[in-house]
Amino acid sequence: MDQKINLEGFTILDDTRGLLIKASHRLHAHFKEQFSLETIEQYIFESYELLDAKSEIKIYLPSLTERFAKDRLHALLKSAHPEESDTIDILFVCVHNSGRSQMAEGFMAQLGGDRVVVRSAGSAPRATLSAEVIHAMAEVGIDIRQEFPKPLTDEIVRASDAVITMGCGDACPVYPGKLYQDWEIENPADQSIDVVRVIRDEIEKRVEALLAELISANR
Amino acid sequence: MDQKINLEGFTILDDTRGLLIKASHRLHAHFKEQFSLETIEQYIFESYELLDAKSEIKIYLPSLTERFAKDRLHALLKSAHPEESDTIDILFVCVHNSGRSQMAEGFMAQLGGDRVVVRSAGSAPRATLSAEVIHAMAEVGIDIRQEFPKPLTDEIVRASDAVITMGCGDACPVYPGKLYQDWEIENPADQSIDVVRVIRDEIEKRVEALLAELISANR
Repeated sequence: MDQKINLEGFTILDDTRGLLIKASHRLHAHFKEQFSLETIEQYIFESYELLDAKSEIKIYLPSLTERFAKDRLHALLKSAHPEESDTIDILFVCVHNSGRSQMAEGFMAQLGGDRVVVRSAGSAPRATLSAEVIHAMAEVGIDIRQEFPKPLTDEIVRASDAVITMGCGDACPVYPGKLYQDWEIENPADQSIDVVRVIRDEIEKRVEALLAELISANR
Repeated sequence: MDQKINLEGFTILDDTRGLLIKASHRLHAHFKEQFSLETIEQYIFESYELLDAKSEIKIYLPSLTERFAKDRLHALLKSAHPEESDTIDILFVCVHNSGRSQMAEGFMAQLGGDRVVVRSAGSAPRATLSAEVIHAMAEVGIDIRQEFPKPLTDEIVRASDAVITMGCGDACPVYPGKLYQDWEIENPADQSIDVVRVIRDEIEKRVEALLAELISANR
């Protein structure tokens, strides 16, 4: 089992390691034209470590890791071959990736449909999404219960055609050729549901305007 | 607003109705080559009524409705133009769609990857998935928290290349040209986590064998 050698640095329980190896093989079936199994395992184990550092509910970590690693590998392909992509890749970044950037991602995914690939990240991700934020989004018909806070990773920034920051300060690396916007939006963390609703509606308006701008620039 | 006329039969709160109309427009953007807005609205409102009858948590209903209706419309396309599809469509049916069929769907989606489209349904769907079933699947790296019990609908049976029933009796309509199997698997409803784990492992083995059979028959 040669591919295990370069994973020895990771201190992971055997059961979890088995699940992550299986996940690597599944992603390899999906990406077999593009990435070696070794590259995929490296991404899987690194993604696990990134999520594990902040996670409270360990039982879902292997499946969240698989989703996160898959998304990172898609981003790697997009940044390597942007000419082969016909979607607009949009990244929303806030501090915790548990409120503002999750709401913006939810609205953009719904409004943009097949034209966009939307991602979100936090400069200091929390363990879970805010319950008030999940509720406020459900009220407008968007179910974000399956989302989870994620750290900012380089390949996802590189893959993005537009990067929108909301109060994450200087944590974002800057690459040329992208649209950058910094939105001043109140932090919904630990706010009442009424305040969260106001923030939600503000984010919806800005997402609508951004999508119109991106579509018109992309024509 | 002509398209509202044929929706008058549905008794739905105005807020929810607004969300469902918006969802119809989004699905129309996705399916605009294939379906009229009127057809899509009919599917959305009918899907809402089907889910509403059993649902306990009303706040997620509009977004679940959109997912269910989208899936039904994809099934309608597949059954109308099977020659344009290069996936194997598989349907698992049990009584409540809260345990066995959900586990089978989770394993098949993970094992089959891009080669399959997997759906599940219940002959008498429950309000929610079993908590023990969600937990047991998380233990093997499969996150099914976002799933929800759904009734059996005609277009989804028609779209399926294989229909696997688990104790739903005579509730399944039968169409020619499909693979039918009835699996005798204990019902995990109201069982302990230890019993659920045994059922889970049995389902995994059967799903693996079924996938191998379908792939070899499809070559």
